[in-house]
Amino acid sequence: MSVIYHRVALIGLGLIAGSMAHAMRRAGLAGEIVGTARSAETRKIAAEIGLCDRVVETAAEAVAGADLVVLAVPVGAMGAVAEEISPHLKPGATLTDVGSVKRAVIDAVAPHIPEGVHFIPAHPLAGTEHSGPRAGFAELFDNRWCLLVPVEGTDPAATARLRALWEGMGANVEEMDADHHDLVLAVTSHAPHLIAYTMVGVADDLGRVTDSEVIKYSAAGFRDFTRIAASDPTMWRDVFLNNKEATLEILGRFTEELFALQRAIRTGDGEMLHDYFTRTRAIRRGIIEAGQDTEAPDFGRVKERR
Amino acid sequence: MSVIYHRVALIGLGLIAGSMAHAMRRAGLAGEIVGTARSAETRKIAAEIGLCDRVVETAAEAVAGADLVVLAVPVGAMGAVAEEISPHLKPGATLTDVGSVKRAVIDAVAPHIPEGVHFIPAHPLAGTEHSGPRAGFAELFDNRWCLLVPVEGTDPAATARLRALWEGMGANVEEMDADHHDLVLAVTSHAPHLIAYTMVGVADDLGRVTDSEVIKYSAAGFRDFTRIAASDPTMWRDVFLNNKEATLEILGRFTEELFALQRAIRTGDGEMLHDYFTRTRAIRRGIIEAGQDTEAPDFGRVKERR
Repeated sequence: MSVIYHRVALIGLGLIAGSMAHAMRRAGLAGEIVGTARSAETRKIAAEIGLCDRVVETAAEAVAGADLVVLAVPVGAMGAVAEEISPHLKPGATLTDVGSVKRAVIDAVAPHIPEGVHFIPAHPLAGTEHSGPRAGFAELFDNRWCLLVPVEGTDPAATARLRALWEGMGANVEEMDADHHDLVLAVTSHAPHLIAYTMVGVADDLGRVTDSEVIKYSAAGFRDFTRIAASDPTMWRDVFLNNKEATLEILGRFTEELFALQRAIRTGDGEMLHDYFTRTRAIRRGIIEAGQDTEAPDFGRVKERR
Repeated sequence: MSVIYHRVALIGLGLIAGSMAHAMRRAGLAGEIVGTARSAETRKIAAEIGLCDRVVETAAEAVAGADLVVLAVPVGAMGAVAEEISPHLKPGATLTDVGSVKRAVIDAVAPHIPEGVHFIPAHPLAGTEHSGPRAGFAELFDNRWCLLVPVEGTDPAATARLRALWEGMGANVEEMDADHHDLVLAVTSHAPHLIAYTMVGVADDLGRVTDSEVIKYSAAGFRDFTRIAASDPTMWRDVFLNNKEATLEILGRFTEELFALQRAIRTGDGEMLHDYFTRTRAIRRGIIEAGQDTEAPDFGRVKERR
């Protein structure tokens, strides 16, 4: 593959930006990768492990001369960073982000985009429970989806170029409208995360069952919740505060359904439970067929990284 | 390892019994394995794949002369099977089960146990989303827990022998009182399963997001719920109907906490959310240290069976 952007600036050096650096290098997609982060400790580690070609102290410095600027900071910090870098953006450059919500990011960032700079919001649907500059790896985006959410009037050529970058990093790319994105993610990601956090919190809080019992016997189902509930707290706080409406809507639907199932348990309505549990299997089958998970019955055993 | 039971009878030939057959053979723990199942189709498949040394038509036939009888049927069917086999049990034999709830199984089975037969309830904490006679594999119990729940007055020698069998099949064994078992499992397994079923049901039901979108973008968190929610519907119906009180108690706690988090989102209380999400990370770390999961950031990629 050949170079798509001569210089890429990564603002924020956590799991996603770090994985982008690895993935761009794997395929030779960037001439030079410049990185920065607010925390001196993060910059130090990134420099030590050679995560970027250059690590600089400020976002303004990082974006100077960059053809692509990636905002990879928590959603709540995007607006302030956009304001800070705005005067330093190179004409013709593309500015993108990797935030998990899109409407709020557009509202916060768009007002700061100077004439002649292409703003193309994006969201790679990939992650692990790990965070920080050491967490990234080149394969994170392989066969995962990246959603592009171009705002009105975006230059199609700029969008095509960003699409080529994500495809070069291994992702499948789709375009979607910001509000629909936020609803889809509320269902597939934001509500499940809040639910998992809640269940882990309940288990931790329960006097009559010790944490050590919860940990020992987690393989019975609970473990899959803890994997979700170990994600970065700052990132997730910002997601919920910035995708409030859609998340609360889905959670409302969720509690309504949960109450119906609770009532079925209380009244002993086995037929209702059985029908419900049968219906949910079809979705799982679809996910396996779509290549988004494996059938291997390896629950919790040691896995190999591809 | 040497033979622990001369003849073992498996009643029910699903994932757990099938895995027991494979695991007993791997370590040479049983002289002969006799199996039966209610469904003729299941018996036919079991015979074809040589799951047991002998597949017979009735439970009464299966238990004749068996030193160990394993009830591996849904929890709701245990009482009827116990009544059926009761007159055919060999004096001195051990009768055990693998049900996910223990108080209800004891109440249903204990009245049918003849004098001189040892009834020792058990519960291996292992499973996959797959069911049926082809689903089993020898490694299912490796490094998983098996809880023994001896009733009052159980012969310690009979318990020690059953423990040796489970250890021989790869499991770690602990003893626990039935009511505590049911509460621990409500937290670590039953409530998480119901919650996962509910979330998958909501996603399936939502008009404005299509199933195909849910499936495509599941890797963002939702996928871990579908893995849980694909388990056997009959088994889970019986679990909820037979561990009603503890499950409803935990679900009550869960909705209380979920409402508190929903309110924090609605009112924009970022500090509360951040604190909550930080606390849940410690439990995850404990699970990894306890060897019940791996740290590898391989989310949804192809995994190797050990």
